[in-house]
This record gives sequence, C-alpha cells and structure tokens, in this order.
Amino acid sequence: MLVIGELINSTRKGIKEALQEKDASRIRHLARKQLDAGADVLDVNTATSRDQEIDDMEWAIGIIHEEAGGDVRLAIDSPKPEAVEHGLGKCRARPLVNSITNDPKTSEPLLPLVKEHDADVIGLTMGKKGMPKTVEERVAEAGHLIESVDKAGVALERLYIDPLVMTIGSNQEQAVAVLETVRTIKKRWGQDGVKTSVGLSNVSYGLPRRTAINQAFLAMLLQVGLDAAIVDPTDPRMMEISKACDALLGSDDHCLGYIKYQRQRAL
Amino acid sequence: MLVIGELINSTRKGIKEALQEKDASRIRHLARKQLDAGADVLDVNTATSRDQEIDDMEWAIGIIHEEAGGDVRLAIDSPKPEAVEHGLGKCRARPLVNSITNDPKTSEPLLPLVKEHDADVIGLTMGKKGMPKTVEERVAEAGHLIESVDKAGVALERLYIDPLVMTIGSNQEQAVAVLETVRTIKKRWGQDGVKTSVGLSNVSYGLPRRTAINQAFLAMLLQVGLDAAIVDPTDPRMMEISKACDALLGSDDHCLGYIKYQRQRAL
Repeated sequence: MLVIGELINSTRKGIKEALQEKDASRIRHLARKQLDAGADVLDVNTATSRDQEIDDMEWAIGIIHEEAGGDVRLAIDSPKPEAVEHGLGKCRARPLVNSITNDPKTSEPLLPLVKEHDADVIGLTMGKKGMPKTVEERVAEAGHLIESVDKAGVALERLYIDPLVMTIGSNQEQAVAVLETVRTIKKRWGQDGVKTSVGLSNVSYGLPRRTAINQAFLAMLLQVGLDAAIVDPTDPRMMEISKACDALLGSDDHCLGYIKYQRQRAL
Repeated sequence: MLVIGELINSTRKGIKEALQEKDASRIRHLARKQLDAGADVLDVNTATSRDQEIDDMEWAIGIIHEEAGGDVRLAIDSPKPEAVEHGLGKCRARPLVNSITNDPKTSEPLLPLVKEHDADVIGLTMGKKGMPKTVEERVAEAGHLIESVDKAGVALERLYIDPLVMTIGSNQEQAVAVLETVRTIKKRWGQDGVKTSVGLSNVSYGLPRRTAINQAFLAMLLQVGLDAAIVDPTDPRMMEISKACDALLGSDDHCLGYIKYQRQRAL
C-alpha cells in the first residue's frame, strides 16, 4: 500500500500556526516522523493560509526538502489550481495531485499540470452534483474520471480513484458501498493500471476508539484491492495492520517486510 | 460472530495442573473472564488428562455451570468419542461438538451424538489424507461433511465448517486459500444454513506481534462471511475488531453494539 502521510495539513491543530510563524522545526519534525514511520508520500496542505497559501506551500516544500532530500514524494493538496501549479513547480520527485473531481472547475486546470509534471493524481468520485451515495453512482463517476484523464493524455497508471469514504456513524451502509466500489473499479479497470485510494479515517468520525474501526476497514479495503491510503503513519496500529495485510495477502514475500517492521518497532 | 472462548483447554499452560489439582477457582475464573469479555460459547478440553479425561471433563463442566448457570453454552472438545458423549450428557444449553472430520473414525460415532443432543458441530475440512492445501481440496471436503451431516439427519444449520487455518509463517498462500474457501462455502451452501468457523490464531504462529496478523485476518474473514471463531476473548484488541467489523458490515444496527462495547470497556 502507498502510504500518504496526512499530518502536514493546515486544517490540523498547530499547523496553521506553524505556517503563520514560519516555525520550520515543526514542519521538519512532522516530515521526519512520518517518513521514519513508513510514509511513501507526504501530503502538503496550506489552504487555511488563504492569501498566503502559495507562499506557505512553497516555504513548506522547501523545508521538507531540506529535511528529507530531493527524493521525498509530495502530494500537493489544494482547492486552488494556482497553488497546485506552484507546488508542483517545487517538487523534485514524482508529485501527486490531491485532488481532481468530475467538476470541470478542478479537472480542466489540473489535468494539464498532471501531464506536464508526470504526476500521480487522486480523482474523487464526484462531480457537480456532490457526494455520491450508491456503488453505481461512484462507479459511474470513476468512469468519467478515467475518460477525462485519458483525454488529457495522462496515463491511466497515474490515476488513483478515491470512492469517498464517509462515516458509518451516520450512513452505515456507506462502508460496504465503498468496499464494493473498490472491488468493482479494480475488477473493471485494474488491468489498465487504474488504482484506488481512500481517506481512511473518515469512516469512524464521531465513533469511540476510532482506531479499531479504521484498522478493520483498512484490512477489508486491502483485501478488495486498495492501492493507497491517506493516513496518519505515526499511528503504529495502522501501519502494523497494513504490513500484516501485505503478509496475509502474499504481497510481502515470506512475511519479511512484516517481520522487519516489527523488529524495528521493538528496538 | 459467534465467539468461542479457547482458554479452558488442557494443552494451555496451567490448565493441565488445574485439572490435576482440582483447582476449581482457576476454571471458575477463566469461565467468568471469558463470558464477561463477550464469549458466546466456552470450549472445554481436558484431553491431556488421558485416563482421567472423562472425569475431568465432567468436573470442569460442573464448575462452569456453578459459576455461570445452566444457560452457558459449551463446546465439547475431545478426540475421544466417549469423552464427547459424557461431556454432552452434562451440557444444559445447546452444546457444540468440537470437532468431526471426514474420517469415519470421528464422524460415525459423533454425528449420532450431535443429533441426539441437537448440538452444533464443527466439521474440519479434512479426511484420512490429512491437511488440505488448496481451495478445491477444502471445498471438496466441505461437500463431504455436508453429505455426512445430512445423511445423519442433522440439520445443515447445525454445521460450522472449519477450513483449517495454517500459519503464513511457513505457508504464505494458505491465508488467501482460507479466505477463498470461506467465500465459496458461504456462496454455495450459505442459503442452506451452513456456517463457517476458524481457529484464528493459527495464522500467525511463529511471527512477531501475532495480534496484528490475527486482527487483520479476522476482518478479512468476516468480510467474506465467517460466522464463528475460536479465539481468546479476553484479548480486547480481537474483540473490538470483531465489533468494529459488525458495525462496518452493517450487522450491528446503527453501530449501537460497537458503541456499547467501547463504553463498557472504558468504565
């Protein structure tokens, strides 16, 4: 599983302040901590800085590169195409654009940037009509995303489709709908290279001991073919479930990755 | 999920001694602890007592009834048909016979007892040839079990088929084979009432932090339709994953069971 670390996000406690105060040590620390914990990509979101969003994005990316070198992969996470454009301009390794939808307001300006930077891109299964409810609606939106990506000349291997996880606290049937959507997308378009990604922790919003719900859902998602997740990689319970799933499903040969992970944790 | 508590088993540390010394408090304590943690059925195995097995089985069942009353469900777990017969004779609530195989040495003496006591029964997907390796072998053995149970006049709703979980430490492909077997059995015979059960923790034998592997595997198994598992119910990480799966898969209406479980744990 591609682990996208979610901690450098201006909607999270302390990050907005760190950006305002140009507190490099805080950004540096979160980058290091997530990479050490096993993140493959670091999400960077400075959207709450508003007018300063682009400056803050470029500044944060600079700090992360100072800390982790040019090989670190970044997910440029912004609702503003200009911010994405500037963010992508600063990336040194293959970036990930987080995210487009089927609303032309996002896909039209962003897909040419995805192509230009040979980036990966997360596509949310929604258009102008808002959040999908059924498997059918999600799969139809996935089909539209694939069309747009293809039309823009972006390889389908670059696309991670996100079926939009909602909390089971208010819409219990949504978890099964997301599982079924991932299974269907992988079955229909997996051989073309299309991948799937989720914002995992949404599933447990409002419920006690969210980790247990998140862990169980991650195992189920990986079983149906999930490729990536935006998570807090510093939660060892999430990372070990992900490693355990790789061992169970056979993608971690002889369980060596799992054993190594647990040995390092024990040190 | 039907939770079968595995702790009163003479192959476990301290139980053999408790049986030899007729240490009622130890048995009583393990019964209470497992039931409080959420066990639906308590497994009772006194096989290491050898010549004393039947006496010890009857004694242990008596202690459990004293502690927990006549409503407690017991799984009579012995390789000896006479021990099973005596155990069943002492049960007050619907017992579970753990277990038969396709070897007539187990099924011929035990199935009439299952019928007589209107018991549930675990059927292992193996015959004289020993442990199965492939999905096909397991499903074929499941078919033979169903035939024998049906022929013996036992309702198919009484049968829990156990696809024999092995450690991924030495046979990595076995986890996926078990998942596929459970899915196939439920698809083919689920509407006839046939259920599935596993000895869960075998999957992680020999690996570090076994709980993580067990948790992930349980979530995957419940997703493909598992009905019961023999587990240590006093491991809260296993129980909360089981409750989380019920909430995710929709069998726990409005997540109320999950919320109640976590509230009680927090007290």
